Amino acid sequence: MFLLANQSLDILLTLFVMMAAAKVLAETFERLQQPAIVGEILAGVLIGPSVLNWVAPSEITNTLAEVGVIFLLFTVGLETKPVAIFRVGKIALLVAVLGVAAPFVAGYFLLLAWGGTVVQSLFLGTALVATSVGITARVLAGLGLLEAPASRIILGAAVIDDILGLLILALVASAAAGQIDYLEIGLTAALAIGFTIFVMLVGAPAITRLAPRIEALRISQSLFVFGLLLCLGLSFAATYIGVAAIIGAFLAGMALADATEGNETLHKQMNGVTEFLVPFFLVNIGMQLRLDVFRSASVIGLVLVVTLVAALTKFLGCGLGALSLGWRRAAQVGTGMIPRGEVGIVVAQIGLSLAVIDDALFGVVLFMSVATTLIAPPFLKLLFATETAAQKGPRPQAHD
Amino acid sequence: MFLLANQSLDILLTLFVMMAAAKVLAETFERLQQPAIVGEILAGVLIGPSVLNWVAPSEITNTLAEVGVIFLLFTVGLETKPVAIFRVGKIALLVAVLGVAAPFVAGYFLLLAWGGTVVQSLFLGTALVATSVGITARVLAGLGLLEAPASRIILGAAVIDDILGLLILALVASAAAGQIDYLEIGLTAALAIGFTIFVMLVGAPAITRLAPRIEALRISQSLFVFGLLLCLGLSFAATYIGVAAIIGAFLAGMALADATEGNETLHKQMNGVTEFLVPFFLVNIGMQLRLDVFRSASVIGLVLVVTLVAALTKFLGCGLGALSLGWRRAAQVGTGMIPRGEVGIVVAQIGLSLAVIDDALFGVVLFMSVATTLIAPPFLKLLFATETAAQKGPRPQAHD
Repeated sequence: MFLLANQSLDILLTLFVMMAAAKVLAETFERLQQPAIVGEILAGVLIGPSVLNWVAPSEITNTLAEVGVIFLLFTVGLETKPVAIFRVGKIALLVAVLGVAAPFVAGYFLLLAWGGTVVQSLFLGTALVATSVGITARVLAGLGLLEAPASRIILGAAVIDDILGLLILALVASAAAGQIDYLEIGLTAALAIGFTIFVMLVGAPAITRLAPRIEALRISQSLFVFGLLLCLGLSFAATYIGVAAIIGAFLAGMALADATEGNETLHKQMNGVTEFLVPFFLVNIGMQLRLDVFRSASVIGLVLVVTLVAALTKFLGCGLGALSLGWRRAAQVGTGMIPRGEVGIVVAQIGLSLAVIDDALFGVVLFMSVATTLIAPPFLKLLFATETAAQKGPRPQAHD
Repeated sequence: MFLLANQSLDILLTLFVMMAAAKVLAETFERLQQPAIVGEILAGVLIGPSVLNWVAPSEITNTLAEVGVIFLLFTVGLETKPVAIFRVGKIALLVAVLGVAAPFVAGYFLLLAWGGTVVQSLFLGTALVATSVGITARVLAGLGLLEAPASRIILGAAVIDDILGLLILALVASAAAGQIDYLEIGLTAALAIGFTIFVMLVGAPAITRLAPRIEALRISQSLFVFGLLLCLGLSFAATYIGVAAIIGAFLAGMALADATEGNETLHKQMNGVTEFLVPFFLVNIGMQLRLDVFRSASVIGLVLVVTLVAALTKFLGCGLGALSLGWRRAAQVGTGMIPRGEVGIVVAQIGLSLAVIDDALFGVVLFMSVATTLIAPPFLKLLFATETAAQKGPRPQAHD
């Protein structure tokens, strides 16, 4: 109905252009033996404000992107049993702690040496801390390697990493505001840790026992619907507590892993939702990139150094934490933790909203977030090549 | 990351509340032997501005609703071969024409007798014209009866009905604006009809021939991805021409029906997308209802009469068109065409934006749209009871 259709016209065209660009570049990258995911992120750079300016990030694209990465982590959680994470708990903790400490300290001293203020330097350090596990999870799921030992450690470490990042952000943000409320920060820590442990230890077995009764409900596809609700509900709860929504979604998936094991229909339905939504997440990341930071020569240097430091410190810190598993697995874990993706962007937005960092530094963090996200997948593919060859076949519908 | 999280917090909570309310009421209605779909729409009434005011329609909920009904019609199209629609073409045309003429004439004279102006009366007639086939398609798909003869006629008639509605709206809207541009309206008609025929006659066989080459692409799930793109692309194209997006989506599905026949994985993936999105469509319809039209006694009378006339004229007009198939099938077709849903709402919004109708009349049309949508499903379920009993079983994942 043509007169009022402009708004819905825009939205349909936006969705079509994002999806089409993502898949054309994914196909191109696959043919060049490069990871499809890099093509999909670059599709966002191409159609976004930096280059063609066909589509700009909006409330709609941000929502689709967020729901997309939530369901991505949910489906990853579905294939991850809590017990598998507990088994790697100690190493994951070491990986997370070293992988948080190294980039934070390096980022802090780097910007201080560059002439930044103490608060600015603290913020840059914080922005370098948080790993976005979505990209790595996508690559590993695509390779069918979510059950490899290094994958378990990456997933476990990502949960701990996010909680540590939350606490550092709380500390730095309250320091920037003038005073640190240790009680509130302690409460936040207790809530985040309690939430994670509660879902894994109490939620998962309760849901496994409850599942037959959910399946007996009258509404169609009741277990699938319950999964959607659990995913949205725990994502909300995680955000409410202060942890990233994707951590809640991952925990929701893990809580359902036992109850849905071998349920091919449910896995295919969830796979459909994820495949539909994930391109919007990837393209939306690419659209965040602003190439105008490269206009000033001094910022160019900072951008390159920050990106390099972000990648190297995460790789070395996490790799050191996983060194007990041997060099190759340590390298897998270190590389898997490199992408900062949307989490680094969120920290930068907070810094901007607190007027702690300026537009130039914001651009630097954006570039670092997108660049680290683009660096990791090709290396991951190489580092996991042996496992890929050995494990080929079991899950034919996921080979991105 | 808590400081900036308010927006995404709101969105996650909104999605969770909409989905949870829809499914709780769906389960309740199933247990009362009532259609789940009625429960999901009433969930929208309950949590919407009319009653609890927990959630209001927003750009996000409207987008999810629109994408939801688009994918609903796309999956319905996937199970409808073009040849099956051609076979019922003549009856469908008769059903559509009579089902458009009767409500239009009745709505026009009703409001004229009530004291409305000629232009207002023309608009009310137009608002009564357009059937929203989404609700009926959902019910029929849920019963596994998309291949019943009456279902084919309803789907074919809905496409023609929408084109006729488009032309009437173009005529009435340009009459309201002062002058009728017959050339432009003729062009719109030619485009809409040409688009439909082109997709069915040229697009569908071309895609069937192209499908093996699409499946041979390197990206994962290439046929599923192509389906998503075709659905979004033709929905956009239809909207661009002036037809409803759902008609484009339905045609896209139909064009893919032959190529995807028997592809269980693709059907389950699409089913996942649809099941995730459709509750937002249904709840969003319910949220549109404003009970404040019932504050004035004179409007209450009009509301009830308009709703009754809308339901009866569509039932009688469409039923008359299908009478050659016998009384029972005529009643099935007539009932299936009753829901006005989101299409009636869009016409009312256009009237409001042209300042042709006032808030009271807008409220009347809204109520009529939601009420006709709620009336039809229980009768449909009853009228199709014999077929349901006979056809039970073939598609276990769709029994809403």
